[in-house]
Amino acid sequence: MKKIAVLTSGGDAPGMNAAIRAVVRKAIYEGLEVVGIKQGYQGILERNFEAMTLGAVGDIIQRGGTKLYSARFPQFKEDAVQAEAISILREEGIDGLIVIGGDGSYRGAMSLTEKGFPCVGVPGTIDNDIPGTEYTIGFDTALNTVMYSIDKIRDTATSHENSFIVEVMGRDAGDIAVWAGVAAGAETVVIPEVDFDIDMVISRLQRSADRGKKHSIIIVAEGVMSGHTLANLLKEKAGIETRVSVLGHMQRGGSPTARDRVLASRFGARAVELLLEGKAGVAVGIRNHNLVDYDLPEAYESKHQADVSLYTLSEQLSI
Amino acid sequence: MKKIAVLTSGGDAPGMNAAIRAVVRKAIYEGLEVVGIKQGYQGILERNFEAMTLGAVGDIIQRGGTKLYSARFPQFKEDAVQAEAISILREEGIDGLIVIGGDGSYRGAMSLTEKGFPCVGVPGTIDNDIPGTEYTIGFDTALNTVMYSIDKIRDTATSHENSFIVEVMGRDAGDIAVWAGVAAGAETVVIPEVDFDIDMVISRLQRSADRGKKHSIIIVAEGVMSGHTLANLLKEKAGIETRVSVLGHMQRGGSPTARDRVLASRFGARAVELLLEGKAGVAVGIRNHNLVDYDLPEAYESKHQADVSLYTLSEQLSI
Amino acid sequence: MKKIAVLTSGGDAPGMNAAIRAVVRKAIYEGLEVVGIKQGYQGILERNFEAMTLGAVGDIIQRGGTKLYSARFPQFKEDAVQAEAISILREEGIDGLIVIGGDGSYRGAMSLTEKGFPCVGVPGTIDNDIPGTEYTIGFDTALNTVMYSIDKIRDTATSHENSFIVEVMGRDAGDIAVWAGVAAGAETVVIPEVDFDIDMVISRLQRSADRGKKHSIIIVAEGVMSGHTLANLLKEKAGIETRVSVLGHMQRGGSPTARDRVLASRFGARAVELLLEGKAGVAVGIRNHNLVDYDLPEAYESKHQADVSLYTLSEQLSI
Amino acid sequence: MKKIAVLTSGGDAPGMNAAIRAVVRKAIYEGLEVVGIKQGYQGILERNFEAMTLGAVGDIIQRGGTKLYSARFPQFKEDAVQAEAISILREEGIDGLIVIGGDGSYRGAMSLTEKGFPCVGVPGTIDNDIPGTEYTIGFDTALNTVMYSIDKIRDTATSHENSFIVEVMGRDAGDIAVWAGVAAGAETVVIPEVDFDIDMVISRLQRSADRGKKHSIIIVAEGVMSGHTLANLLKEKAGIETRVSVLGHMQRGGSPTARDRVLASRFGARAVELLLEGKAGVAVGIRNHNLVDYDLPEAYESKHQADVSLYTLSEQLSI
Repeated sequence: MKKIAVLTSGGDAPGMNAAIRAVVRKAIYEGLEVVGIKQGYQGILERNFEAMTLGAVGDIIQRGGTKLYSARFPQFKEDAVQAEAISILREEGIDGLIVIGGDGSYRGAMSLTEKGFPCVGVPGTIDNDIPGTEYTIGFDTALNTVMYSIDKIRDTATSHENSFIVEVMGRDAGDIAVWAGVAAGAETVVIPEVDFDIDMVISRLQRSADRGKKHSIIIVAEGVMSGHTLANLLKEKAGIETRVSVLGHMQRGGSPTARDRVLASRFGARAVELLLEGKAGVAVGIRNHNLVDYDLPEAYESKHQADVSLYTLSEQLSI
Repeated sequence: MKKIAVLTSGGDAPGMNAAIRAVVRKAIYEGLEVVGIKQGYQGILERNFEAMTLGAVGDIIQRGGTKLYSARFPQFKEDAVQAEAISILREEGIDGLIVIGGDGSYRGAMSLTEKGFPCVGVPGTIDNDIPGTEYTIGFDTALNTVMYSIDKIRDTATSHENSFIVEVMGRDAGDIAVWAGVAAGAETVVIPEVDFDIDMVISRLQRSADRGKKHSIIIVAEGVMSGHTLANLLKEKAGIETRVSVLGHMQRGGSPTARDRVLASRFGARAVELLLEGKAGVAVGIRNHNLVDYDLPEAYESKHQADVSLYTLSEQLSI
Repeated sequence: MKKIAVLTSGGDAPGMNAAIRAVVRKAIYEGLEVVGIKQGYQGILERNFEAMTLGAVGDIIQRGGTKLYSARFPQFKEDAVQAEAISILREEGIDGLIVIGGDGSYRGAMSLTEKGFPCVGVPGTIDNDIPGTEYTIGFDTALNTVMYSIDKIRDTATSHENSFIVEVMGRDAGDIAVWAGVAAGAETVVIPEVDFDIDMVISRLQRSADRGKKHSIIIVAEGVMSGHTLANLLKEKAGIETRVSVLGHMQRGGSPTARDRVLASRFGARAVELLLEGKAGVAVGIRNHNLVDYDLPEAYESKHQADVSLYTLSEQLSI
Repeated sequence: MKKIAVLTSGGDAPGMNAAIRAVVRKAIYEGLEVVGIKQGYQGILERNFEAMTLGAVGDIIQRGGTKLYSARFPQFKEDAVQAEAISILREEGIDGLIVIGGDGSYRGAMSLTEKGFPCVGVPGTIDNDIPGTEYTIGFDTALNTVMYSIDKIRDTATSHENSFIVEVMGRDAGDIAVWAGVAAGAETVVIPEVDFDIDMVISRLQRSADRGKKHSIIIVAEGVMSGHTLANLLKEKAGIETRVSVLGHMQRGGSPTARDRVLASRFGARAVELLLEGKAGVAVGIRNHNLVDYDLPEAYESKHQADVSLYTLSEQLSI
């Protein structure tokens, strides 16, 4: 292996730049050449390439977003498109590809590998919803962004004795919601992993009110329902007034936290090693504090489960 | 004057605690006693009082929200209620009142003053929309919160080459929108002070696109229209796709910036001096870097104007 | 067990308040009474107690420092003092004690347990140097504070093409230095766990210079030598000019990160469970993502080891 | 005027990039070409030039440091060097120069102007010490960095009931110290503008202690003495123990605040207008909220004075 490529795919996540940097520097350290592919898989077809030197990844470790851009490219499911991609990569003298992104991005990487072009996946998504790894790049930063935003909302909640519903990201995964729930001391958390029960939410709020609490923070993962829907339910069913805040796209951005930069650096460097070791069709992950690798399909065929012990903890501490 | 009181009223703003602290410490410095009234004007009627010692305002200068809480109390418009408030204040031996809040709060302060109870207003609102003062307590913090949030959104906008509409606070005032527009380098700003023209917004976006810009940030003050309404207009009229982010309540919270803490400290201390000088029915303000005081009605009878030169600057720099 | 007490001891760490809150809320959830002891072990002798209600721990999860204060109290090594402490605790009807602090604090907790008074330790120190747990409360926050400070220093380093030595906390442990080294992309890291070799530091800097890098960041843990000493060595031995920044006490403070708040919440709640389960003389910890408990002496009799794989990673990525 | 150049000189300051961006965009808006000169005046002699397009200043408004680098270049005082610089600038077809930096940088700009090459100065320095303008680019960011650092130190000061001396930047100017003193609620501030009196510092600390305060924050501007010197004085003269924190170089870096970005944008755009209006040998500034321009020598021949009313306020509020 003499030359490898790296791309980012799917939703951007803070720390992707740190991962790109680690791939490039580790590869150069190992004597490899590195090509950056812009705009995800689409960039292969459009030959949107950039030679990655040490300088190209200078001063990016601290930046949100992805220097290589990202894009959706549904056509990449097609065999013919994949075949063309491989022939372009080979023409460029590229021997292996590192794909930084969510589990959706892993399917393309697996297909290329099956067609003979070795790929390694690096988990990058704020949702922390990739099976096989305890953490994904971007989760810690998004979590802190959410938490500090709720800290701000609580200033107003406390001053005015109002209750707030905060809608956070997480279509299938409650990780951001439940971690932020514990970290920001939210009174109630609504996540996809636990069956929704409006009566339970109401009884928790009423119990809080009975204990003299004059405001509450309710966090809802967008995958369960929107914050506004929940507000309507609370009003209709129990006459409870709440204000709604939808944190939205800012959850994806920002300078990555230390954890995300370190995780991304470890993942990126390990991905290069895996290619050099001849492993392909695998993703890097972290389990029990150690780096692991596992077959890509394990990521998109199984189902991620949020840590329900945190949900229970959140309930007990928010009495 | 031997004993004064202080309350916060209207929407909370970062820096209100710094203003409370300054009132209390300056008053004690001048040999006065100070009473904190909780939950705004309502707290007078409910005798919701707290003796304010140096310790009571320790470790609050850096906190968002207001330690004295705030509440709406529409009944305070009634003469009888105001009269009762005055008699309660006198019973408590209180000789003057400092009201920290928006121009709505100033009306009550003026009524009390007209009925013989001296009040001084301190401008506290993130909207920066109080006539007679160039800055209000909380504006600088809210502005920075908005700007850093847009910095985060831009990470995603750049990575995915999408355009975003960011809806910010400001019912009647475009200050947050236009300052944040310049500070975050937004491509377009929509504020109440400038007649809305969808065609102009569209032509600006198209000119940007023609110059090769693949993403844009559009800031809209909530007073003009919601972000979602603007998104629909852009789609219907010109087929432009945008994503919408409503920054919401977090704009009100957070640890105040240095400017807000210094402004609040200056305002709070000056308000005490004004009471001691026998001035009543006035508000403190800042003009040309100097503290001023002026009659309360000037604040609620005239109209605040955002700095349109910044709007022009924003247009010129976002070519 | 009907009534338990909690204290903080040793250097303060961000997240201690979150741990106190978790102890109190979990205990109340389990039907226990809780007493807060102020100023560490000394507070027992001085009967510096506060009944901890739900309200007493409201609005503290996000605050740095410790609401219960901390203090050194060397006399607590004496048998007679410990005996008196136990008799005071029993007089107050207290059945168990949770000690939040570093491994030094654990000795006192073990002595009390050996004398018949059940104690549980919770690891709170920014240095991350307590054997038996992978992370301690406060480490993640301190790490991020260090990293963002180095990000700022790098702005100047880059603009002026100067090299900087940044001295960080860590008397015996290189955790902050080595994690920050990876996270901030430092060129060189000097930690207690790796034998210091000035020639190696010099050759790394010269290799960087040869590759065209015009500035470098060197992180040194205070336990190896001071930043100024290192600067003098570099100048004397190789004529290399550097500027020195000693990050100092700000590393201990600040609002805790999400990780620290969640870790502290888990630790605090688990410590209450351990007392209820009749376990004493143990500390809580986290290993492989799971909560564990282990005998207190394991913490102060063995030696913490920083993750040297990060040191190697830092070297490879900073070529 | 068809083509102008811009450079940054002296110590870097957050917001310099925003000023560069404003110069470039405003110039392009006005139909001019712009050249960026790297590494200050030295870059002229070394023909270290970069054509500045809209893209060249994209995504830099939020970054600390200066994209154009800065450097000391003492030789620029010599007439021959200045003459050569002018001939190089003319060769390149450059008609005017905008210099962003401190008052030291203004001397070179004035010399070039006197020799026939029109220059305009833009005040960029965190020290806020340029006569003729109320604020300089970078001051607001540095002030907030200092304040939030002191907030962190106070967490520890409060928890351990220790007193801290915090040494901040400011060789000749006490602006950072005195503003931070008010904003962070420091008990004592020592600045160059007020004669130092160790007995007064001691008596303030003792009065605080008498009132029951168990910790104090003392801010000292580096221009008066070092933090360690002050600590020794307090110990020798009054037996007062303090800990010292030297904030150091991180005060110069970081993403600029909203104020600094807006100020930089206004200054940069105005500087271009001044060149177009045929004004040379002047600096832009802000007075009473309005942009002004004044002769460059006014900046370096007169003396900046910190706002002593803030010093008095700080004293009164820290009782």
